Amino acid sequence: MATAAQTDTKIELYRDLARQLRVDSIRCSTAAGSGHPTSSLSAADLIAVLLAGHLRYDFGQPDNPANDHLIFSKGHASPLIYAMFKAAGAISDDELMTFRKFGSRLEGHPTPILPWVDVATGSLGQGLPIGVGIALAGKRVLDAPYHVWILVGDSESAEGSIWEAFDHAGHEGLANLTAILDVNRLGQRGPTELEWDMGAYAARVRAFGVDPIVIDGHDPAEIDDAYGRARGAGRPTAILARTVKGKGVSFIENKEGWHGKALDPEQAKQAIAELGGETRSRTFAVAKPERWDRPSMQRSGSLALKTYTEPIATRKAYGEALAALGAARKDVVVLDAEVSNSTHAEDFKKTAPDRFFEMYIAEQQMVAAAVGMQVLGLVPFASTFAAFMTRAFDFIRMAAISRASIRLCGSHAGVSIGEDGPSQMALEDLAMMRAVHGSTVFYPCDANQTARLVGLMAERGGISYLRTTREKTPILYTDRLEEFRVGGSRIVRGGQPDDAVAVIAAGITVHEAIKAAEEVKGTIKVRVIDAYSVKPIDTAALVDAVRATGGRLCVVEDHWIEGGLGDAVLAALAEAGVAGNIQRFVHLAVRDMPGSGTPAELLDGAGISARHIVNAVRELAPERPRGG
Amino acid sequence: MATAAQTDTKIELYRDLARQLRVDSIRCSTAAGSGHPTSSLSAADLIAVLLAGHLRYDFGQPDNPANDHLIFSKGHASPLIYAMFKAAGAISDDELMTFRKFGSRLEGHPTPILPWVDVATGSLGQGLPIGVGIALAGKRVLDAPYHVWILVGDSESAEGSIWEAFDHAGHEGLANLTAILDVNRLGQRGPTELEWDMGAYAARVRAFGVDPIVIDGHDPAEIDDAYGRARGAGRPTAILARTVKGKGVSFIENKEGWHGKALDPEQAKQAIAELGGETRSRTFAVAKPERWDRPSMQRSGSLALKTYTEPIATRKAYGEALAALGAARKDVVVLDAEVSNSTHAEDFKKTAPDRFFEMYIAEQQMVAAAVGMQVLGLVPFASTFAAFMTRAFDFIRMAAISRASIRLCGSHAGVSIGEDGPSQMALEDLAMMRAVHGSTVFYPCDANQTARLVGLMAERGGISYLRTTREKTPILYTDRLEEFRVGGSRIVRGGQPDDAVAVIAAGITVHEAIKAAEEVKGTIKVRVIDAYSVKPIDTAALVDAVRATGGRLCVVEDHWIEGGLGDAVLAALAEAGVAGNIQRFVHLAVRDMPGSGTPAELLDGAGISARHIVNAVRELAPERPRGG
Repeated sequence: MATAAQTDTKIELYRDLARQLRVDSIRCSTAAGSGHPTSSLSAADLIAVLLAGHLRYDFGQPDNPANDHLIFSKGHASPLIYAMFKAAGAISDDELMTFRKFGSRLEGHPTPILPWVDVATGSLGQGLPIGVGIALAGKRVLDAPYHVWILVGDSESAEGSIWEAFDHAGHEGLANLTAILDVNRLGQRGPTELEWDMGAYAARVRAFGVDPIVIDGHDPAEIDDAYGRARGAGRPTAILARTVKGKGVSFIENKEGWHGKALDPEQAKQAIAELGGETRSRTFAVAKPERWDRPSMQRSGSLALKTYTEPIATRKAYGEALAALGAARKDVVVLDAEVSNSTHAEDFKKTAPDRFFEMYIAEQQMVAAAVGMQVLGLVPFASTFAAFMTRAFDFIRMAAISRASIRLCGSHAGVSIGEDGPSQMALEDLAMMRAVHGSTVFYPCDANQTARLVGLMAERGGISYLRTTREKTPILYTDRLEEFRVGGSRIVRGGQPDDAVAVIAAGITVHEAIKAAEEVKGTIKVRVIDAYSVKPIDTAALVDAVRATGGRLCVVEDHWIEGGLGDAVLAALAEAGVAGNIQRFVHLAVRDMPGSGTPAELLDGAGISARHIVNAVRELAPERPRGG
Repeated sequence: MATAAQTDTKIELYRDLARQLRVDSIRCSTAAGSGHPTSSLSAADLIAVLLAGHLRYDFGQPDNPANDHLIFSKGHASPLIYAMFKAAGAISDDELMTFRKFGSRLEGHPTPILPWVDVATGSLGQGLPIGVGIALAGKRVLDAPYHVWILVGDSESAEGSIWEAFDHAGHEGLANLTAILDVNRLGQRGPTELEWDMGAYAARVRAFGVDPIVIDGHDPAEIDDAYGRARGAGRPTAILARTVKGKGVSFIENKEGWHGKALDPEQAKQAIAELGGETRSRTFAVAKPERWDRPSMQRSGSLALKTYTEPIATRKAYGEALAALGAARKDVVVLDAEVSNSTHAEDFKKTAPDRFFEMYIAEQQMVAAAVGMQVLGLVPFASTFAAFMTRAFDFIRMAAISRASIRLCGSHAGVSIGEDGPSQMALEDLAMMRAVHGSTVFYPCDANQTARLVGLMAERGGISYLRTTREKTPILYTDRLEEFRVGGSRIVRGGQPDDAVAVIAAGITVHEAIKAAEEVKGTIKVRVIDAYSVKPIDTAALVDAVRATGGRLCVVEDHWIEGGLGDAVLAALAEAGVAGNIQRFVHLAVRDMPGSGTPAELLDGAGISARHIVNAVRELAPERPRGG
């Protein structure tokens, strides 16, 4: 046990650090002329005690796998996290004062361009579910010693994703996770729903399977005790800290109208005086973790992807490719949102159950967990119906800002799913995924292609997306399977310099396009391009098709007319400077709201079946065969 | 009090109805060859007692404003809802047997093409938050007598949006709302997280401010009692019903592997025999609501939109236009996700506080509530930062399937927000909103235009979206303000038949384009088009610009390069058949991940400032002025 004197010294240290964090939070935001000092001040004591007393983190070696993880889910408290980095000696005072300036690493909200930041935050309600992913992998895949601490705002507890996170933390018994709720009572525009009703927070958290620890968030001794209990607990914990927004500066404490507002220089001077004056830039010792070697993720074998000869759904090929990846690589993990028997992620579960994560019907938590797991160098694949990926769009968008490498698979794309109707049909997923920074978007049409693209995704950085089909599709490819590539395409019919019309398709419509090409064979030479790499798209192949056909193009896709393959083709041709060589362009895509029916009825009803392609081709073809 | 004999008769009636609902659920799904009979059977007793004993609904007059509202949040139990419509005499047995067939109104999941269905469901976790919107408007705007009943699946309680809904129901004290949780223990691929832990469900619901009533979901008397208590309660209620999936048919009861699977004809025969044989198609009496006249929503005056002369942010003009709408129309309601002082929705709150809804940081619940309110004929506007609209994409997608008319406003679009950094910058919202069926997408560049577009949105059906800017922008328009229209654009510089280059811009980039045009004035004739209606876009104006300039186009936008204005322009020109007249096309858009900085630094850093437009125009212009 610590003596009373030792305790006093420790508490004094905490107070000194908290004072410096507060002063620096004010200094850097005032210098920037913007930022969130009051949201930083409420959490300064919580962070001071964590940094100096409980965090195990080697700031000189941020990639030490034994390091604890600390995520500011309330990313707007960035002055505080940067002040903390300075206090830990990771950045200089000069760099701190570049906060929010053009070119600075210290952006308005933290991002992983800083080596001590795991993930970007700033869209509220995301840090906690990401932390769940880090804790989950730590417990179930890595058996890691680290603890995951997440500073959560009280306002953001209105986001459902926070409760998805508590639910999963409780269900999985993540004793290595502690949420630190900064209950400062005030949101951006006024009081939160629950204000300081600590009992209500405690009841909610407990009901979701997480142990609440209610404390005064400005009492270093209480905070100290709570962290000790949290790390030692056998269950996930939530420290519910009653705090005061703007704490320590009388004229902003617990006042409305001060969210996201920097103090002006005069106010800052006064505030710093109240806090005890400018502190010297002191560096505080942070405990390093004990040495721990991460289990080897060495590849256990070469990747043995199946080769198919009989019709099979691309979603099934996805599942079997995952299983093959799981056998070859220990770093591949798979998550699914309670539809693994539809997406076929269950094929991975059968062979690598320890690396399969059932996320139930919580798509936001699923994508967040994938982001968390890639922080640890794992290679996550996450799947659900493509339509329901829209549920996680904000998480996917933020994953790009996190520079995360995650792989998503959306099954049951398009009207071709049939009877289930439009709620289950993804008709906007290509538009959504194309508009994600640095994304790769694949839409395969047969099982062999699917398997190879899944293999490519495992090697690919950034956010990649695979769109799969519900129905069985014929096998098109049995040779040159190694040639499928990011940015590739394949000519499946025609390919001569005198092709009359080019039909550009992907996924299910490739088969319709082939049927159409067969039907007009003999009268019109049709080139059918399988544009399986929707982003990046194979610009060279498109340009060549324009040249060959004199610019007679038909794009056919099982997607709304906006934002999908058609837009991608036009943008690529424009970027290549050959838009002007487009003679005629017919875009077959879904324009009216579909209903239920058989896949064939719905493809035809949407105007994207072979019959419609035949009509388009006939309309596009020159009066007589070119050169004929 | 009812006599024992009366009670017996009532219970017998419930049993008869439940039997018919079960038999019909099996019959129609077996005829379809797909669907969810087991999920229907678990809830058959719950729905039988509701329909015959508690619902107040005039099936002959579905637009009676006094009708209760019943939403199947578990939309996959569509066989049950359609069997219920038949039992109520709303549809014939013949129509029931068209379930899931091409052209039938009885789609795989219910949609409002059926007059007794308020909203489309089938993406789980949405019916309850939509019901919250209906209840909220019933309580606060309409003072309506109806009760809102929502059948919720246990699996979908894993969605955070369910907890956003319970949170809001509790916070607003929605005594007119009852969630009926069908706890059948089994999800699609296996057991749910909580299985039959009724205590855990009760604790969660109670912690969120909703009174739980735990019952046996197959005991008509218990169900009957629970509904009576729920309607009479002074607080929102959740009936937590322990049920058995597939109840009533021995070989599917509580069995895994039976989700979303129709019985084959032989199995169906056996099942129906177990249930007591084919029932005759009996129609059951449903209590009609007492007459109630909806409060008049008569317009209280003409719309007095402001006219601005000084620079002001478009987001501020949005808020002031809302306030004007609120004064002129009693049917306008406004929702905001805890950022009303940023979106300026607070301007409406100040003048019409009774019709302003604070949704806290719960964007999914916000959009769902807007969808619920438009069911009642209200005219909802919902706002948050444009970046955070991505959080609600699945709800927006489903709103289109609901044929809902809602108006969304996303503020703080693009890199031009400045210091806050990329997490707060919407750079994918145009791509997202363009890919919503039947949507209208506006991106105004000045306050006068904004106000008029907000006026148009109030009159517009479907889903409309307004993108606003954080920074103050100069006033461009003081005349012909009545000419702004859906599908319109405006030429703000040039406009002669001999313009050399056309720059197509929207919002913030219009001002950059004007600066660029001024700079090259005298050497290059630039036409600047303000394409404020991004969808539908003004194709005629684009075609004219191509004709005038010989196809020399520059599109400049504060958005990722994919899916926004550039794609919209190319798609329109291709659809109009003039893509081939594009001589040169330069697309200035955001290509690299931005950081923090001033708006000017970030616009320039992204390559979309006046300087970059000048370079593009010089590159595009013909060697010497055309005709010169």
